[in-house]
Amino acid sequence: MTYCVGILVRDGLVMIADTRTNAGVDNIATFRKLHLFEKPGGRLVTLATAGNLSVSQSVMSLLSDGVENPETGEIETLMNVPSMFKAAQLVGRAIRQVYAIDGVEMEKRNMTFDVTMLLGGQIGKGQMRLYQVYSAGNAIEATLDTPFLQIGEPKYGKPILDRAISHTTELVEALKLGLISMDSTLKSNLGVGLPIDIVVAKRDALKAQITYRIQEDEPYFRDLRERWSAALRAAHQAIPHPPYADKVL
Amino acid sequence: MTYCVGILVRDGLVMIADTRTNAGVDNIATFRKLHLFEKPGGRLVTLATAGNLSVSQSVMSLLSDGVENPETGEIETLMNVPSMFKAAQLVGRAIRQVYAIDGVEMEKRNMTFDVTMLLGGQIGKGQMRLYQVYSAGNAIEATLDTPFLQIGEPKYGKPILDRAISHTTELVEALKLGLISMDSTLKSNLGVGLPIDIVVAKRDALKAQITYRIQEDEPYFRDLRERWSAALRAAHQAIPHPPYADKVL
Repeated sequence: MTYCVGILVRDGLVMIADTRTNAGVDNIATFRKLHLFEKPGGRLVTLATAGNLSVSQSVMSLLSDGVENPETGEIETLMNVPSMFKAAQLVGRAIRQVYAIDGVEMEKRNMTFDVTMLLGGQIGKGQMRLYQVYSAGNAIEATLDTPFLQIGEPKYGKPILDRAISHTTELVEALKLGLISMDSTLKSNLGVGLPIDIVVAKRDALKAQITYRIQEDEPYFRDLRERWSAALRAAHQAIPHPPYADKVL
Repeated sequence: MTYCVGILVRDGLVMIADTRTNAGVDNIATFRKLHLFEKPGGRLVTLATAGNLSVSQSVMSLLSDGVENPETGEIETLMNVPSMFKAAQLVGRAIRQVYAIDGVEMEKRNMTFDVTMLLGGQIGKGQMRLYQVYSAGNAIEATLDTPFLQIGEPKYGKPILDRAISHTTELVEALKLGLISMDSTLKSNLGVGLPIDIVVAKRDALKAQITYRIQEDEPYFRDLRERWSAALRAAHQAIPHPPYADKVL
């Protein structure tokens, strides 16, 4: 399992991903799922991956080697595509190439061709954008109304984002909310685990302000988890009792 | 979809269930999923159902008519079984009878025989117990370490329970936490909807102290939802910024 979240607010982009992969609970490993393609001043592209590890690694290799654009005949990579929209199309084409090579055979053996990616960033004078690319290579984009996208195991970490994230949320608050969302997922799903990778980029900076890995026992993240748990306990205790419970319980 | 939660703490039992059923998002209806079998002073048994509505209604009808106990030859209902363990076995037998009649045919038509139930209560001098009965008729039981069980859509509402519920949680706090867990699920899954049914029973009272239905726009539940959202926003804002974000964001 995996949990990755991308949050695109007015002031910039937050991308957070765990690093656990597992084939059953008795075969757990650590793999980086958050990748950064950066040319400071020129482009900042991040890609987070979920799903079958062989598929996502093959897609990453293709993206690194380059994929031919059927319209122009040029070899495209995330370091040379001219816009985020073209980058999303490129990722989609890479996924479809891996499907053509491996996916068809996987399905014959009753394995699911399962891959989803979050692609966020900004290229040149273009807008900062955040996409979710599906296993068929199609994509959706985050908007003002829905400023965050999640892949992997989204449900445990979604309630806090649903309540607290909007387009105008400050970038540092978006980062904290992403970490809280990750914490809720870590607590409830063993398939999601530390270390946690983070990239934060301000809009129009065209470089990452933060690239950071939270290791086990990192004091700030431990403190955030404890404060959040304590705050939740205080919050429910501060809510009045139901009127229908007042005399009977 | 459905969300039902049962919480068994030192002082008693909380059962909460929504009432929405849907066959696609364009076919939504309201059905009671939380049922009470009570003989004050003698027994308090509650049953919450999730899954295919035809299956759960057939199981309820069988439980009402009675199911023969193959060991004793007697016709058992939830109003006459001598213990909660026997009640869980009875519910399991009723599910297996419905599988024999309808489930086999459903599977031929590629429909899943999908039903899960929460059974909580206390009978006579026996212990108060909480079971989750699966579609094969087998069951697990809540324990001191895991005092709550969920059926239907469990994930959105699980983080708050994971953090805040323990065996020694006060009964009224368990009720409030169950409502908060329900609120998180309502917010994120359209297949779960108001009204919400509640049963609360103190240990050894052998009757329900609270049987209540929360309707749309009930002031207390609306207030709880608003206070909870406000408390979450205040909680994340009160957490210090990450040290690695301090100078750059």
